[in-house]
Amino acid sequence: MLTAPLPADTTTGPATTRVEAVMRDIRQRIENRSLCAGKRLPSIRSQAESLGVSRSTVVEAYGRLTAEGLIESRPGSGFYVGHQLTPFSLAETQPGLPPDSDPVWVTRQSLLADEASLKPGCGWLPAAWMPEQDIRRALRTLSRRPLAPLTGYGTPQGLPELRQLLSHRLGERGIPAAPAQIMLTESGTQAVDLLCRFLLQPGDTVLVDDPCYFSFQAMLRAHRADVVSVPYTPHGPDLPALQNCLLRHRPRLYITNAALHNPTGASLRPDIAHKVLLLAAQYDLTIIEDDVFADFEHRPAPRLAALDGLQRVIYVGSFSKTLSASVRVGHIATRPDWIRQLVDLKLATAFESGHFSAELLHTLLGSGSYLRHMNGLRARLADAMGIALERLQALGIHPWHRPDSGMFLWCTLPHGLDAATLAHHALERHRMVLAPGNAFSLSQSAAGFMRVNAAQSLDPAIYVALEQSMEACARRQA
Amino acid sequence: MLTAPLPADTTTGPATTRVEAVMRDIRQRIENRSLCAGKRLPSIRSQAESLGVSRSTVVEAYGRLTAEGLIESRPGSGFYVGHQLTPFSLAETQPGLPPDSDPVWVTRQSLLADEASLKPGCGWLPAAWMPEQDIRRALRTLSRRPLAPLTGYGTPQGLPELRQLLSHRLGERGIPAAPAQIMLTESGTQAVDLLCRFLLQPGDTVLVDDPCYFSFQAMLRAHRADVVSVPYTPHGPDLPALQNCLLRHRPRLYITNAALHNPTGASLRPDIAHKVLLLAAQYDLTIIEDDVFADFEHRPAPRLAALDGLQRVIYVGSFSKTLSASVRVGHIATRPDWIRQLVDLKLATAFESGHFSAELLHTLLGSGSYLRHMNGLRARLADAMGIALERLQALGIHPWHRPDSGMFLWCTLPHGLDAATLAHHALERHRMVLAPGNAFSLSQSAAGFMRVNAAQSLDPAIYVALEQSMEACARRQA
Repeated sequence: MLTAPLPADTTTGPATTRVEAVMRDIRQRIENRSLCAGKRLPSIRSQAESLGVSRSTVVEAYGRLTAEGLIESRPGSGFYVGHQLTPFSLAETQPGLPPDSDPVWVTRQSLLADEASLKPGCGWLPAAWMPEQDIRRALRTLSRRPLAPLTGYGTPQGLPELRQLLSHRLGERGIPAAPAQIMLTESGTQAVDLLCRFLLQPGDTVLVDDPCYFSFQAMLRAHRADVVSVPYTPHGPDLPALQNCLLRHRPRLYITNAALHNPTGASLRPDIAHKVLLLAAQYDLTIIEDDVFADFEHRPAPRLAALDGLQRVIYVGSFSKTLSASVRVGHIATRPDWIRQLVDLKLATAFESGHFSAELLHTLLGSGSYLRHMNGLRARLADAMGIALERLQALGIHPWHRPDSGMFLWCTLPHGLDAATLAHHALERHRMVLAPGNAFSLSQSAAGFMRVNAAQSLDPAIYVALEQSMEACARRQA
Repeated sequence: MLTAPLPADTTTGPATTRVEAVMRDIRQRIENRSLCAGKRLPSIRSQAESLGVSRSTVVEAYGRLTAEGLIESRPGSGFYVGHQLTPFSLAETQPGLPPDSDPVWVTRQSLLADEASLKPGCGWLPAAWMPEQDIRRALRTLSRRPLAPLTGYGTPQGLPELRQLLSHRLGERGIPAAPAQIMLTESGTQAVDLLCRFLLQPGDTVLVDDPCYFSFQAMLRAHRADVVSVPYTPHGPDLPALQNCLLRHRPRLYITNAALHNPTGASLRPDIAHKVLLLAAQYDLTIIEDDVFADFEHRPAPRLAALDGLQRVIYVGSFSKTLSASVRVGHIATRPDWIRQLVDLKLATAFESGHFSAELLHTLLGSGSYLRHMNGLRARLADAMGIALERLQALGIHPWHRPDSGMFLWCTLPHGLDAATLAHHALERHRMVLAPGNAFSLSQSAAGFMRVNAAQSLDPAIYVALEQSMEACARRQA
């Protein structure tokens, strides 16, 4: 990431604040690993030019960083990043700054807010929407079961009975995954993370949608990947932009949600799905299809994994959004020859994925109550979506697209309002968590958008707070 | 990893098998990332010399790999690793080969074996030794609790009440960790893995003990670290070797178990602990102290984290070995200023660590039954240790060190028997899982050792099978 030029020097000597700004810039680039140990720093001349400061400012900054041991001077050759341990930092800037530079801002705020808080920006359902009685019953069932699931490790690939059941469910969606092609993980997030480890080398280029789930961007930063993005339309990625991006950047991997895309709620149209796969074949692109919202669909959209037959598409699912966020189990379905290596990698980095959670999930899915629960949930979500749409539109907040189902509405704000400013105001004044558009946008082109979770937006107090914050921000912007 | 030279060419043209051997060598080095995308391959001359084959063999192998797209030829410059996606492989060789080249062999075999199998090589207690009734009771308690822990996400840093309780426990061991300095993770393994992500860059040098827990080696390979090791004595790392290693390799990080060291059962002596910390300060070394066996101790050994006050030592714990391997919660205690970044990294790569598991653990630890359980467990382990020692010695298998407590015995085999050969024989003929020494040894200097878990070695059938396998292997070796 390049830092914007600093305002031009107005003094003749190196002003302390300018020197510190240059030092801060270098420090951040070392922390977020855009400058690695042993790497040569830009020359004093080019650094001065790119930051718009005098050379003496850079000389002073490099000198102080050398004294701190963060960088080393090699006479005749330049300055190099030292070998001192510098822990990795996800955030490129300081905590508390706008979410566009802090990739886990929305997640952190949503997790910190309690159940009573207003959080239309939150990415999951209210706890009360989950199948409480079913979970209590499953716990009592497990408390009477034989010992092993309560105290022992599971098998490396994960509970065979659960994989059998998942295989059947995937088959119903047209995804041909034998139980041997399925591996259980601790969560959907851990599944995508493990796949990134498996598939990526530092410096690899990875493609995401714009907008996309912000955690993909944060995770890819932790994998030291170069991330590129293509605009997402209401029917899938923009194909000309996709082709252009594949040609230009040659990404190895594309991470996407094909159905009920996060944050837009859009779903892939069959013809676009087909063309995405043709392009993937042409440019030898591997795809991770993260399908954690699958069970919210009224009518199933096409799945890349089904069309492709799990050749170059790897499928990821979980039940965190529909059953319990607390009992964590995810799954990966992929080519049989990759499962063994993925299992090894899971054993080495996580040991085992919760045996107890897998048993609990198997009990819940096997009982038939899950189908009833999901039917009820879909109807309840459809109602919530109608109510949220009406109330948002009354405030001049309009949907970019009307999703068929799911919980997310991707909305445009009125009057060129900046969503990040609004989110900060709402959090400070009303303890209300919003999800500003640029948290989802690699290109930072969604400043006027926000994601609204209909299920978390039923409290009329939300719209009162929203209106007040919008007015305050509009006044401030004017 | 360098491959040993192949036997010298005896034919004039490039023999097919030799060409394939060179191709296999390159392929493995690309898979295990010792050759990265875009990196230049050794020249044809130097490759031919190092593998002891003719240049025409290498020319043929490079040509075929180029045709496969795995490498690229750049005229006038040489051959380069291509940009084709090559998934990461932990094992340097094919599955099924000796454990010294397969870092998760022991884990995989132990997890695949059922409770009825003989598995003295296993790294955990039998399920029946775990506090069954306490867990059943805790599950029933939780099934009657308010909703949130059953269905919702927890807080980013992890259940405050559990962190409070852990803080108190750590305080009793002299480790000054406020609840704000503690973060919950999915497991002890995930805690170490997350810390590696936080602290390491690819290519960093990391120090481990020799022998050490094999998962550290596997995990560090997944982090693309260069691993070096120092011999472990019955009282801690060999200090002159440690100093020499620090001077020569300048590792950034040292991962160790200070008390009840895995696999040796050794514990750090106070004077050695003090000197390790002096050396760490001198060479600016960060230390991860993995203390998952802590509660097995009769008399507590010194903790590096206590002496150091959590400055350069990061403490990791879990209850997988004492309460339940199935309900997974680990914890990290570290400097307050690192917690925020670690929380962000956890959110980005694992989202949240199981809220339900944390509640269950809190219920179990808070009830007082854990103390009773551990008192019983320690006495039972001491008995098992006495029995195992006697029976092993009757077979000529002797302890390298008599541990004060815990479950592990690090043993020498008689007659120069090779433990990997023995482990394979025992698995094939008796479905018995052994843990051969070199699985734990980076320097591969423990071929005559094996780790025995006393708690898993009470069945007399183990010693019958062991004797038969030892005799068969001795005959084969003779």
